[in-house]
Amino acid sequence: MRIVLIGAGRLATNLGVALKKAGHEVACVWSRTEASASSLASILDTIWTCQLEELPTDADVYLLSVTDQALQEVIGKLPNTNSVYIHTAGSMPMQLFEGKMLHYGVFYPMQTFSKEKRVSFEQIPCFIEGSDQPTLDVIKTLANSLSRKVYELTSEQRQYLHLGSVFACNFANHCYAVAFSILKQHGIKPEVLLPLIRETADKVERIEPLKGQTGPAVRGDFNVMQHHLQLLEGQTMWQQLYNEISEDIQRMQKTEAEL
Amino acid sequence: MRIVLIGAGRLATNLGVALKKAGHEVACVWSRTEASASSLASILDTIWTCQLEELPTDADVYLLSVTDQALQEVIGKLPNTNSVYIHTAGSMPMQLFEGKMLHYGVFYPMQTFSKEKRVSFEQIPCFIEGSDQPTLDVIKTLANSLSRKVYELTSEQRQYLHLGSVFACNFANHCYAVAFSILKQHGIKPEVLLPLIRETADKVERIEPLKGQTGPAVRGDFNVMQHHLQLLEGQTMWQQLYNEISEDIQRMQKTEAEL
Repeated sequence: MRIVLIGAGRLATNLGVALKKAGHEVACVWSRTEASASSLASILDTIWTCQLEELPTDADVYLLSVTDQALQEVIGKLPNTNSVYIHTAGSMPMQLFEGKMLHYGVFYPMQTFSKEKRVSFEQIPCFIEGSDQPTLDVIKTLANSLSRKVYELTSEQRQYLHLGSVFACNFANHCYAVAFSILKQHGIKPEVLLPLIRETADKVERIEPLKGQTGPAVRGDFNVMQHHLQLLEGQTMWQQLYNEISEDIQRMQKTEAEL
Repeated sequence: MRIVLIGAGRLATNLGVALKKAGHEVACVWSRTEASASSLASILDTIWTCQLEELPTDADVYLLSVTDQALQEVIGKLPNTNSVYIHTAGSMPMQLFEGKMLHYGVFYPMQTFSKEKRVSFEQIPCFIEGSDQPTLDVIKTLANSLSRKVYELTSEQRQYLHLGSVFACNFANHCYAVAFSILKQHGIKPEVLLPLIRETADKVERIEPLKGQTGPAVRGDFNVMQHHLQLLEGQTMWQQLYNEISEDIQRMQKTEAEL
């Protein structure tokens, strides 16, 4: 397919590379700034622009990978063609395109992307939605050319999926960040945590996280929890998080036991 | 070495298997209940007892792997010999043995253990401490026979390490549990989260978690955060967690930027 790539951030970069690898043509890259547009265009060996009205009008697909805030504005300025318009935002409904474009949909690859580290798309679960069957078929073909895990999902469900991904990825990563910071504050190399982090993530592939939980909260070890809160003296945000996450761990175990 | 294993829980089970594999002799297993004592003894092909006063008195090492609450009581009832007494509790000071035993120390393997899933000890970071140099040498020899990652650490530092491990493991796992629950509530198979969970854990091996953070909070995407809070309506604990973790993500990014 001949694809116009709108955006040049982490996801757009990973996506552009994966699209080329899958044999698609990236016809043009748009970004708000020259620096990022030209940088990604040079990686993808294609042309670039910072003017939405200058985009080629003969592409098969316009693939939007911009921030959620920018999405509506960018859609409003795109050339209106008979092509398929696709956004990649987990939390945004497909209906953003409604009344503006004829054929549209969503392609949401659920992963955390870095510019530094290329992620292989093959194993990334991708969630798709289309405004009509032929459009959905185009999006499905595109998605299948990138990933082996393609699922259809409504906008309604996708917003909960996105919410879940914030807990599973961003909030889990924040727990790592707090742990790293605590160790550093006390002269311990944070890298010693890596095997624990890895095993915790591995374990969830075999045992549901609720059933596989360990540690003082699930054991009801009040003494250790009190001691940890003392160690966090002066770090009120972390004390609060410690208390509330521990409380929620106990609450969810209790709810599970009652079921 | 000839080792008496005190406890028959998740850690004791994994430890017993690893000790035998490393060529040590497990002389006896103690547990409070017959069922767990005999079950672990049969796995390790050794004798068992539920009476602490009946333990063999000729072991080289008494290795305690009981709950933090039980530790003090169990230590008080152990036969007092010239052997080395070691506990495995991350949050408990070595000084629990002081005035009771002559030679003592700590061997804390930092990992999350399941009874169902045997963990290879080789890659587990183990943190040791000893009451005197010859005792530390014995503990170091024992630790090196199990793991390739052995570190000396004071009781003072170890309590912060343990606190960090609660964030990196138990609290991260709780974030997975919340995510799984949200997806289930909306008819989405939670297994679709696994590649994201795995990549989030992988990424921290290359990029510090604070620098590798993604998602609405770090982007300052107020609209998405508001929308997520609406989706969590009626689930006040999760709304609160969402708010506070997001706030702490932003606070830590700001602090990092100021440094």
